[in-house]
Amino acid sequence: MTAAVLANNLWVLVCGLFVFMMTIAVGLLEVGELGERVIQSLVKTILITGLAVLVMAVIGFNTAFAPTVGGIIGNPFYGPGLILGAFSPGITDSWWSVSGAGLRTAYFLFETAFAAVTLALVGVVALHKMKLSAFAIYSVVYFVVIWALPAAWIWNPSGWLAKLGMVDFAGGLVVHGAAGAAGLGIVWQIWREEKAGGRKTSEVVPYRVNPGWLTIAILLLWVGWFGFNPGSVLAFNDEAIVVVETTFVAAAAAMASTSITAYMLTKELFNPLYVVNGILMGLIVITPLAGFVSPGSALILGLLCGPIFCYAERFVGRAKWMSDPVGLFPGHLVGGVFGVLMIALFAQNQFATGSGFPTLPNGLLFGGGGAAVKQLGIEVLGIVVAVATVFLISNLTVRALAALMKGITTGHLSAQEAETITAADR
Amino acid sequence: MTAAVLANNLWVLVCGLFVFMMTIAVGLLEVGELGERVIQSLVKTILITGLAVLVMAVIGFNTAFAPTVGGIIGNPFYGPGLILGAFSPGITDSWWSVSGAGLRTAYFLFETAFAAVTLALVGVVALHKMKLSAFAIYSVVYFVVIWALPAAWIWNPSGWLAKLGMVDFAGGLVVHGAAGAAGLGIVWQIWREEKAGGRKTSEVVPYRVNPGWLTIAILLLWVGWFGFNPGSVLAFNDEAIVVVETTFVAAAAAMASTSITAYMLTKELFNPLYVVNGILMGLIVITPLAGFVSPGSALILGLLCGPIFCYAERFVGRAKWMSDPVGLFPGHLVGGVFGVLMIALFAQNQFATGSGFPTLPNGLLFGGGGAAVKQLGIEVLGIVVAVATVFLISNLTVRALAALMKGITTGHLSAQEAETITAADR
Amino acid sequence: MTAAVLANNLWVLVCGLFVFMMTIAVGLLEVGELGERVIQSLVKTILITGLAVLVMAVIGFNTAFAPTVGGIIGNPFYGPGLILGAFSPGITDSWWSVSGAGLRTAYFLFETAFAAVTLALVGVVALHKMKLSAFAIYSVVYFVVIWALPAAWIWNPSGWLAKLGMVDFAGGLVVHGAAGAAGLGIVWQIWREEKAGGRKTSEVVPYRVNPGWLTIAILLLWVGWFGFNPGSVLAFNDEAIVVVETTFVAAAAAMASTSITAYMLTKELFNPLYVVNGILMGLIVITPLAGFVSPGSALILGLLCGPIFCYAERFVGRAKWMSDPVGLFPGHLVGGVFGVLMIALFAQNQFATGSGFPTLPNGLLFGGGGAAVKQLGIEVLGIVVAVATVFLISNLTVRALAALMKGITTGHLSAQEAETITAADR
Repeated sequence: MTAAVLANNLWVLVCGLFVFMMTIAVGLLEVGELGERVIQSLVKTILITGLAVLVMAVIGFNTAFAPTVGGIIGNPFYGPGLILGAFSPGITDSWWSVSGAGLRTAYFLFETAFAAVTLALVGVVALHKMKLSAFAIYSVVYFVVIWALPAAWIWNPSGWLAKLGMVDFAGGLVVHGAAGAAGLGIVWQIWREEKAGGRKTSEVVPYRVNPGWLTIAILLLWVGWFGFNPGSVLAFNDEAIVVVETTFVAAAAAMASTSITAYMLTKELFNPLYVVNGILMGLIVITPLAGFVSPGSALILGLLCGPIFCYAERFVGRAKWMSDPVGLFPGHLVGGVFGVLMIALFAQNQFATGSGFPTLPNGLLFGGGGAAVKQLGIEVLGIVVAVATVFLISNLTVRALAALMKGITTGHLSAQEAETITAADR
Repeated sequence: MTAAVLANNLWVLVCGLFVFMMTIAVGLLEVGELGERVIQSLVKTILITGLAVLVMAVIGFNTAFAPTVGGIIGNPFYGPGLILGAFSPGITDSWWSVSGAGLRTAYFLFETAFAAVTLALVGVVALHKMKLSAFAIYSVVYFVVIWALPAAWIWNPSGWLAKLGMVDFAGGLVVHGAAGAAGLGIVWQIWREEKAGGRKTSEVVPYRVNPGWLTIAILLLWVGWFGFNPGSVLAFNDEAIVVVETTFVAAAAAMASTSITAYMLTKELFNPLYVVNGILMGLIVITPLAGFVSPGSALILGLLCGPIFCYAERFVGRAKWMSDPVGLFPGHLVGGVFGVLMIALFAQNQFATGSGFPTLPNGLLFGGGGAAVKQLGIEVLGIVVAVATVFLISNLTVRALAALMKGITTGHLSAQEAETITAADR
Repeated sequence: MTAAVLANNLWVLVCGLFVFMMTIAVGLLEVGELGERVIQSLVKTILITGLAVLVMAVIGFNTAFAPTVGGIIGNPFYGPGLILGAFSPGITDSWWSVSGAGLRTAYFLFETAFAAVTLALVGVVALHKMKLSAFAIYSVVYFVVIWALPAAWIWNPSGWLAKLGMVDFAGGLVVHGAAGAAGLGIVWQIWREEKAGGRKTSEVVPYRVNPGWLTIAILLLWVGWFGFNPGSVLAFNDEAIVVVETTFVAAAAAMASTSITAYMLTKELFNPLYVVNGILMGLIVITPLAGFVSPGSALILGLLCGPIFCYAERFVGRAKWMSDPVGLFPGHLVGGVFGVLMIALFAQNQFATGSGFPTLPNGLLFGGGGAAVKQLGIEVLGIVVAVATVFLISNLTVRALAALMKGITTGHLSAQEAETITAADR
């Protein structure tokens, strides 16, 4: 390997390891926000981590990144990807055609970690409500099909959306938006079962901040995002370092703007939930365009996050038929989609070139004109199709599981039991 | 340094740092499995970490890796190794002859972290039973002699077993098997003292899962193993990336097979102890051959882990004279030795060449024939001699300490007190 | 980028990320030493982390590292530094003239993490006593002026102390000494308000060790120091690896010597507070000269830490008018200043050359003679001026805030309430 190829592989591998930690960090975030009553759900995030590696290694990496069948899904039986080449020692080079960075199978760990953390985000709506066995089976379908489709369309260079020119730097749609859509498919089925059980509103798990776990969670997530965004350059170059800056600046600016917005709305200063959710919102919004924009634009995007999150939280995910205490919908769905749309406003071709997208036009704010409007149209098309498809397959999957398992819900989280648990809680 | 040498040193240094975290992770694993009643033993793992650095820097690195005296033990007074060269600024190059990767003293941190985590594994049987002062003195002997001997024999190229052709990629025997043997030496002495005190069976510390610490522990251990195995290539090359895959795939497959085996035996699904111990068992078993096998073989080895661990747990370490709640014997001793034996079945020369072992023959399953049988004999010889030696020296050391200190046990963990502690426990 | 420049940037970026974790680790250290009663102060360390990134990106990086105005302070309006170049895609190269390592803006993350952790150290005296809003405003002043001045003087090559020949490898003065001085400025104002409220002595928060958080804290701090010191070579070369050794050996030796000294003074063996504070003291003392000394010297320096810390703890920070339970003054102020002074005794030019300081003379113990004495004079001058300036500006800042906000203290931590909190504490 040349010096540059060595550096690229080292970079993607270490970044992949940081992302790998995020799955469990999402579990700790649940505990940090909802209290130790949900601590048993940590086993869920451990299972997700292991199943991601197993299923992606056997077949899921193929369905996402092998040469696609008609631009729709990667060929599941593509030789080099089946069990990572099975027993063949000859396959160490990549079989997908990314940016010419000479990546070896470092890319496998990187993308597997992405798939795992996406499912962890979906899983925050499972709470104690969904049977763990149902969630485990759902995971397998998830890694083979539900996660793979948007990845095959947008990140696989032979995907139909990628060929149209759609871009999504580190997964505003492929990760965050799609996680929201998949979660919506689960929440809807949970509500069908709750309603059938005679409930008028979905049971809500109230906040009970545990500052220790919350702090560990946000630390691991912020460090993980260092892998998530800068690693998504898929090479170690000047632009990878710029992405560290855009990512961190957006997070910091969003922390400030969310804290201030929340103060204006609630008169409470520095509520840990808003401080932490502000950081997360900044990280989510910058994700799809961290490699296309300047630090100055990242600052502006971060400052926009406060109002967006606070109002989204009031109007999204507060319907009587859903329980979304950790903010999957106002945070990841709204934030991810918003970030993707901002590509058409804030992108600067010179940054995008460093990320491996030399044909991305400047955004409207940087003189992109008609090309930027066209880009906006492509991004909207991708958002609509991906969100709808993921929602549909996710919902059909849990419906099928409900038919097989006499419902996917446990029935455990009755309002009364929630109180009981609360009493034992610190 | 050339680009390749720069990458090799960066790789081994960062991998060493990840392994460095594992010592404390083992302490957190104890707390995660046995509950906060053992949380004071965390100071033990902090002490191990510090003492490892101190003792290895002064002399232990020499006894393991300096040119050996007759293949038995490294020359303790070899100049470049005494206090890492003491005040001489001229010594930055390695003085051991590993794989030609141009490693500088990055290798010191890497191997010191290995020594530390091995002792942390030994220490899981100390519980509250062994005096912390006795354990601290034992630590010094451990790093100078007990850990150093198998390392000098197998990993030091001038060691007698290395010269015979024995291989142990990242320490199935040098770390895991030897940790089990050393622990057995301690447990036996504890039992002698318990029996002398009138007990009929060794006191057992019951499980009390603490999901938060258990999750942090398994996260740090898994991340640490990223350093442990892939770093053991001692170079950053294609094979190092393959080792990430074999390591992670074995862990994931073992998680699945152990969960399923435990379900068949106990009818309880997704017990956190079996999920976590499955991951660990996969990581242990793949350790001695992660750099010699394909991802496909790693998958098979991982699937074998479930039955092996579940049955080993039933038949090993459950004798009335030992208390081994964290699974040192069924996990590390049985798993480590099993993995070493599997070298003779699953090795493929092309992978081993990338790890720096170009003369390792294919295993029996890959047409190794007579050469593989001979390799099996060498590995069995090494296992028998190393386990016996380490057990003996470990036991003699604690006997000597018992004579000096009027017993190594505290007498604190009476059955009654264990109950009392339990009541205060969460 | 050439291979060496690639490696340098990768190194500084990854090291910067490890330092980035230390801010929150300091918060966990407070919880580990004082118990969960201070756990709400974790939001303080999250705020510090975010504000550091935001303020340094907008202007603070300029005031520290842009070309200085008369050697005193970096030009705040220097174009390339304002919001990291704002929207300009042309600025990826460094605008400061460090060691010729070809660093890109990786240096921004590295130094921002340093600024953040320095303020976290200052913040350990805030406890619940100081209003969080006052601390947040103080943070902005801190990053723009208080942290920036010593950095601009000593680490910015155009600073007046740097031009005199003052060196401070990784911040014995710029980080630890200055943190102590700034903390003193806050503690004095807290005492003024407590005295005005009728108190005879400052309220003290008693120790209540929480071994779990203490262990996580020391782990993150130790790992963070891997970034802190070795990263401060600002290049990946042989010397960077030697710095790993000097740093780790000093920490380990200090753990041993502090444990033994504490045992001689208190007859209590392995008190977790002394084990952990010993490690920290070793890391602090080696910080200003880790890149100038041999592993042998690091061992000696570490062994000196035990007596220094234990006696400093008895005589510093125990005045009736201050509460410093986490040891900012005996640890960071005394240890940092002591380490800086030791440069004139232990430095060896050949090591310093590898760190980018080829003109640093040998210390007195290595034949430095007159040049070493002159170096001592320069270091003393720098210590006196920096400590006095930082103390003064810090105190004036909190006095101004007190005038604006009717005091900076909350009045919450009455002795009675402290008791009440204690009862609920584990």
